[in-house]
Amino acid sequence: MLDILDGLERTKFCGEFTTDDLDSEVVAHGWVANRRDFGDLVFVDLRDRTGKLQVVFDRSKFLDDYDKVDKLRNEFVISVCGKLVKREEDTIDPKSKTGYIEIRAVKMKVLAKSLPIPFQINEDDSPSDSVRLKYRYLDIRRDVVMQKLLLRNEICKIVRDFFDNNSFIEVETPILGKSTPEGARDYLVPSRVFPNKFFALPQSPQLYKQLLMISGIDRYYQIAKCFRDEDLRADRQPEFTQVDMEMSFVDKEEQVMQITEKLFVKIFKDTIGYDLGTLPRITYDEAMSKYGSDKPDTRFGLELVDISDLAKDCTLVPFKNAVLQGGSVRVINGKGMFEKLSRTELEKLVTFVKGTGAPGMSYITFEEDTPKSPLLKFFTKEQIDEIIKRTNATKGDVIFFVADAKNKIVLTALGKLRLHLAEKFDLIDKSKFNALWVVDFPEFEYSDEEERFVALHHPFTAPKDDCIKYLLTSPEKVYAKAYDIVINGYEVGGGSIRIHDPELQAKMFEALGMDDKKINELFGFFIEAFKYGAPPHGGLAFGLDRLVMLLSGSSDIKSVIAFPKIQTSADLVMEAPDFVTDKQIEEIHISLIKNNSEDKI
Amino acid sequence: MLDILDGLERTKFCGEFTTDDLDSEVVAHGWVANRRDFGDLVFVDLRDRTGKLQVVFDRSKFLDDYDKVDKLRNEFVISVCGKLVKREEDTIDPKSKTGYIEIRAVKMKVLAKSLPIPFQINEDDSPSDSVRLKYRYLDIRRDVVMQKLLLRNEICKIVRDFFDNNSFIEVETPILGKSTPEGARDYLVPSRVFPNKFFALPQSPQLYKQLLMISGIDRYYQIAKCFRDEDLRADRQPEFTQVDMEMSFVDKEEQVMQITEKLFVKIFKDTIGYDLGTLPRITYDEAMSKYGSDKPDTRFGLELVDISDLAKDCTLVPFKNAVLQGGSVRVINGKGMFEKLSRTELEKLVTFVKGTGAPGMSYITFEEDTPKSPLLKFFTKEQIDEIIKRTNATKGDVIFFVADAKNKIVLTALGKLRLHLAEKFDLIDKSKFNALWVVDFPEFEYSDEEERFVALHHPFTAPKDDCIKYLLTSPEKVYAKAYDIVINGYEVGGGSIRIHDPELQAKMFEALGMDDKKINELFGFFIEAFKYGAPPHGGLAFGLDRLVMLLSGSSDIKSVIAFPKIQTSADLVMEAPDFVTDKQIEEIHISLIKNNSEDKI
Repeated sequence: MLDILDGLERTKFCGEFTTDDLDSEVVAHGWVANRRDFGDLVFVDLRDRTGKLQVVFDRSKFLDDYDKVDKLRNEFVISVCGKLVKREEDTIDPKSKTGYIEIRAVKMKVLAKSLPIPFQINEDDSPSDSVRLKYRYLDIRRDVVMQKLLLRNEICKIVRDFFDNNSFIEVETPILGKSTPEGARDYLVPSRVFPNKFFALPQSPQLYKQLLMISGIDRYYQIAKCFRDEDLRADRQPEFTQVDMEMSFVDKEEQVMQITEKLFVKIFKDTIGYDLGTLPRITYDEAMSKYGSDKPDTRFGLELVDISDLAKDCTLVPFKNAVLQGGSVRVINGKGMFEKLSRTELEKLVTFVKGTGAPGMSYITFEEDTPKSPLLKFFTKEQIDEIIKRTNATKGDVIFFVADAKNKIVLTALGKLRLHLAEKFDLIDKSKFNALWVVDFPEFEYSDEEERFVALHHPFTAPKDDCIKYLLTSPEKVYAKAYDIVINGYEVGGGSIRIHDPELQAKMFEALGMDDKKINELFGFFIEAFKYGAPPHGGLAFGLDRLVMLLSGSSDIKSVIAFPKIQTSADLVMEAPDFVTDKQIEEIHISLIKNNSEDKI
Repeated sequence: MLDILDGLERTKFCGEFTTDDLDSEVVAHGWVANRRDFGDLVFVDLRDRTGKLQVVFDRSKFLDDYDKVDKLRNEFVISVCGKLVKREEDTIDPKSKTGYIEIRAVKMKVLAKSLPIPFQINEDDSPSDSVRLKYRYLDIRRDVVMQKLLLRNEICKIVRDFFDNNSFIEVETPILGKSTPEGARDYLVPSRVFPNKFFALPQSPQLYKQLLMISGIDRYYQIAKCFRDEDLRADRQPEFTQVDMEMSFVDKEEQVMQITEKLFVKIFKDTIGYDLGTLPRITYDEAMSKYGSDKPDTRFGLELVDISDLAKDCTLVPFKNAVLQGGSVRVINGKGMFEKLSRTELEKLVTFVKGTGAPGMSYITFEEDTPKSPLLKFFTKEQIDEIIKRTNATKGDVIFFVADAKNKIVLTALGKLRLHLAEKFDLIDKSKFNALWVVDFPEFEYSDEEERFVALHHPFTAPKDDCIKYLLTSPEKVYAKAYDIVINGYEVGGGSIRIHDPELQAKMFEALGMDDKKINELFGFFIEAFKYGAPPHGGLAFGLDRLVMLLSGSSDIKSVIAFPKIQTSADLVMEAPDFVTDKQIEEIHISLIKNNSEDKI
């Protein structure tokens, strides 16, 4: 250790002292976490990133000017020299890892003073986000925040070592890239040298990493910054970090999934000692029909049940029509929820379901063993019995019904209701991490907005071999060699085997409705690259921020980023974005369109 | 290994097979580097990132359809299965690490075909930069390029492991930051949410890393992308990668220098087996007066000699005046150069020196032991003898004289002449790496352009303790706790002990001519942060690209970056920057200033 300050060399970090160090002269640096003043005896908790250590200043034994001790205040930075000793019996703190020891200070130097700070660091003070993020440098001193940054560092190390041990090469790809139209909105950087042209910040290194496969890098990884100029949700950031990998000479999903799974198992084991086990594989279709979601949270039941075959013969017109028009009627059995749901609350659930886009929701209650509902009269006894059988409904349950001519609306509604009920009735074991693979995704989804099929993942995803024939004729029948890794209902990562045949890639663009001119303009260089010997390859990317968030038991993505942006995309520490000078604006050949909107920061 | 292709699982990378694998059935994947066709016997060099392996296709022993072998062409991607055997005596290639072995193929699968490629990969073909960078994904297949990317990966791993072992924490800092006025031109990103405001891409994580010290991270590192929108020189890129570190509880330069030095010694040892030894320390003043540069290349002599004390008493008015006006007269002895320099070439050197900004150059030649020069008549015999003594001039030498009233002009001119002569006469031992520290930099330099003192490093650099008193009165007397690491004449990195006292920081801004309003506007948040307990700290950053360039024996920074930008800042692979849609431009509240300049890509 090099830390020297007036000859005081740090022995260890505060939290690293143990009873092994007893009776030796030690030096520690840190912040005054708190101080208890008994006149001739002052106790200070000295804090650094590793923890706290008690320091005792005894006027009778202090060799230095005791006045400095009297003037100590919280968050002063000091360096202390003294003997490490056992604490007196009555001052032991068994909850702290240094709770049995303390430094009896003989010398001390104040390295920096501190004004009173805007919120408490020691206690479980919860200042507002805007205060905490403005003073993020103080917020990080709080153990709960510091631990997240340390965990993030630890995970990065595990990730890098893992890829390194598996022959992956770290390659940096550019941040100043090109705007590509598929996907989210790009952040743009006006070029000074090329007036009216723009760089774009990458949404992912997708094209670059595929070019690296064509280069023969064979196995690539990168912990990469990615950017999306979208309106933020709680778990999104305009700049986020992605663990990105790609490997050559693979053509089956399992090849990428297995190596990724090993990494995830290792991360959970090595950081929090949790055994993820073998990850179940579930197809997209099964995930949707069982959980109404392609990122199912499997920590609880409440699975969806399809009763379309029964509903199509019932006498309730909306149910019947939903099925006849190609949609479905599906139910969830709210096990034991009857007692807990008042009439008003049931109606609130109906409103909730309507808010997801469904036309409505009906339900059958089981106050006793026999069902009660206005619905009953539209079904035969046999049909009702079959519904009860399929849902295992008994006394105390409530069966929720959603019907629509569009399957997706039914599935989404019940999928969201399922999560809502689980939260409401606390059905989720928060100590569990349920990780699984969702596989066999459709290659396309129909965009109502654009009135055409768009790529569900991205246009470089290889279709399943036996689906290639449907590419141009029946895109809805095409499944993809794509896979997502889902943990506790979060899509943590995803990837695919890529198209490596330039003809198939061109056909894929055609299926997406691009003509030759557009293909050439946007991806001409990319298709050309594939003509010079592109190995089969596939890969995956996962969100580092989200993984750290999950592992640290947080649900706020901001908490695991050193300097996060808030909802508006602003950085409160630096006060960015900000105005720039006219000269700077002129140099990049743009002018500003004046706008009356208020400053929103 | 997971690589499976129709049941063919890769045994090893091509270059990793050894005689230990003899007589076993093996599978290898790769690119056809070349093929020699003898009809019933075809030899193929199979290439992957690790090297090449010879594959022999013998029609009589091939179990598969031999037609595929006939159709193989260069850069086809194939998978081969067969027995690994010793080569026939006459086909051994002792220069190749797999030169004694080959695969006798029994099965082969073509994974991808290739069109004829635009330049040769196998041979030492040197296509132009513009072709190589357009087809960078093919360029990387060349061993000389691939090795650089692999070296870069190796160095990153050494760097990370080193910092990890020394208790440094990796923390990511934002890419979307705030424009700060000191320094180079920023790349700007217009904000969509905040009309007329801009993010800026960071020139370095300087402010963030200092905030992390205030946060208590204690020891930070990051391999960080940084950006500068400047016109490019050969060794500059608009986006570059910096190894960035900062540590708390240090107040002496040596504390940061020693830990950095250990890392550099380790990198050179572990990658190319070179022993850097202990790095000499040289002060800025000494570097300037001896080498005319603050990044001296010490692999050769040609040191500068000050003869101002003699020149001030000579009778040549420009020399005399130069000294009297506070400048100097300095010389370099071009040892043994007389024979090699014709009159014309000597005059070319004068032109070269004038090109550096000096008013001119004179010289004394030593065809024999006695000097010859029109200069002689302005000096006494004793003065000339003293000049000869100081420069050790003898028969065959040429002494070059530069005089100016500005010291800096003399030093710069002779510093550049020194490098020029060394190149011209091949005085540099290219197998050597001379690394050293330049220390005791001035805190300020006078900017003729701005007519004021500006920070030589940056305004957060701590002045030497005994110079603080001159801050506001005699800035030219203030030296800084700053240090640069220089290798072979390249400034590879630099850093400083930082100011951690908010009052001193405010005074520093004042010394730079900022008034309170401006300080507050630009760095208000930063000065405030220092009021809440900022530990003493210091750090350093070094250019990763430049270091990899040096270690790989290259002088082209582009060669060590996977997807570099060319001189104009354009990316030739992606064709970025590029035009974007009107909608994209509208969304960020700007309009384009139309410009008649041609498309320059």
